Amino acid sequence: MLAGIELRLALEDLYARYAACLDEARYDDWIDLFTEACFYRVVPRENFERDLPLSTMMAESRGMLRDRVYGITTTLYHQPYYQRHLVGGLFIRGVEADAVRTQANYAVFRTKQNEHSEVFNVGRYLDTVVMDGDRLRFREKLCVFDSELIPNSLIYPV
Amino acid sequence: MLAGIELRLALEDLYARYAACLDEARYDDWIDLFTEACFYRVVPRENFERDLPLSTMMAESRGMLRDRVYGITTTLYHQPYYQRHLVGGLFIRGVEADAVRTQANYAVFRTKQNEHSEVFNVGRYLDTVVMDGDRLRFREKLCVFDSELIPNSLIYPV
Amino acid sequence: MLAGIELRLALEDLYARYAACLDEARYDDWIDLFTEACFYRVVPRENFERDLPLSTMMAESRGMLRDRVYGITTTLYHQPYYQRHLVGGLFIRGVEADAVRTQANYAVFRTKQNEHSEVFNVGRYLDTVVMDGDRLRFREKLCVFDSELIPNSLIYPV
Repeated sequence: MLAGIELRLALEDLYARYAACLDEARYDDWIDLFTEACFYRVVPRENFERDLPLSTMMAESRGMLRDRVYGITTTLYHQPYYQRHLVGGLFIRGVEADAVRTQANYAVFRTKQNEHSEVFNVGRYLDTVVMDGDRLRFREKLCVFDSELIPNSLIYPV
Repeated sequence: MLAGIELRLALEDLYARYAACLDEARYDDWIDLFTEACFYRVVPRENFERDLPLSTMMAESRGMLRDRVYGITTTLYHQPYYQRHLVGGLFIRGVEADAVRTQANYAVFRTKQNEHSEVFNVGRYLDTVVMDGDRLRFREKLCVFDSELIPNSLIYPV
Repeated sequence: MLAGIELRLALEDLYARYAACLDEARYDDWIDLFTEACFYRVVPRENFERDLPLSTMMAESRGMLRDRVYGITTTLYHQPYYQRHLVGGLFIRGVEADAVRTQANYAVFRTKQNEHSEVFNVGRYLDTVVMDGDRLRFREKLCVFDSELIPNSLIYPV
């Protein structure tokens, strides 16, 4: 496992590439940022704080992430929109033998065709990052968003 | 005092924890990021640039910060909302014998119950950071926000 | 050319100062962040992805940047507004003998007089940075924004 300054910069890089993959709709590259056995979950803050199980989006392996991407790009009927991520305030919550627990704030801006850009989804990431082969990957990624409205229009991962 | 790369990463960490404390409403932890004798002020850009004294929020010690937090959490009648901070563009404006003057841009998003997230308050921090015991703390924090509307709805610190 | 951690921190610093110059309307300082022969272009994402030549703003030298600034500050009739930049997700796309290709996401918030702050323009920077004398400067800066609406109200550089 990396440590110190190397770890910090490698984490910044991981989050930067995560945002770039989603915003450029490079979903195969996005999946490659997760370990094979992984846990991805998007959940409203209210549910998270009350420990309620309902998730807006969930996947428990790369295979399930691939299913979601297949839905987005092929079968799911939806009005397309652009995403733009800003991630800030990354810090390390804890270091274990083989993993680092991280936290960061994010804002996703949405731009629909012929409309102005708008705030779409803001919240925080609560993640577990591991060294997988020669690079850092997400073993767990939990996206806790602030709005208590369930955004049924949430199509793409955040 | 720290220097070079260590200082930069320690500053990034301080700002990340500052945002996390406010966004998770951990106000005691937030106060602990200031020195005992401190200066916290939130001011509209127009007043700042014309050197006008009016502040939207002000505290001159940890005690006054505690008063504000007591008001927020106990006595102040207000509609609660979530905050989400994004801080970027941190840089060092000057280094003195025992202090570092820093600047950064911030955006705070607000989410009211059953409403969508929205842009709430954007501006810049003009801060003075010192080594206090074994960690960095804010001796001064000046939040200059862009909107010339006085947000009487500004309840929580930004 | 710088490398490794020094390069990363110097790039973060360059982007932080870029944002600060624009947000404080210090346009001479902003121009000084570009090399003498430089290329600055603001283009909608749709045009960029289809390789269409139309730009919302373009300059091919410091002289042309100076012209633009002269227009903004002296001759151009427009309603003034404040800008506030947040830049995140900076990463290095490639390193050449004398230049570094970088990418970052940005959001610009606009505040008009007596109005609330709002999302104005979001997108990504695709830049080429070189060591010019003793500091990093932009040789090329391409701002690709997400909204397909041509913002004729885009007065200041982003």
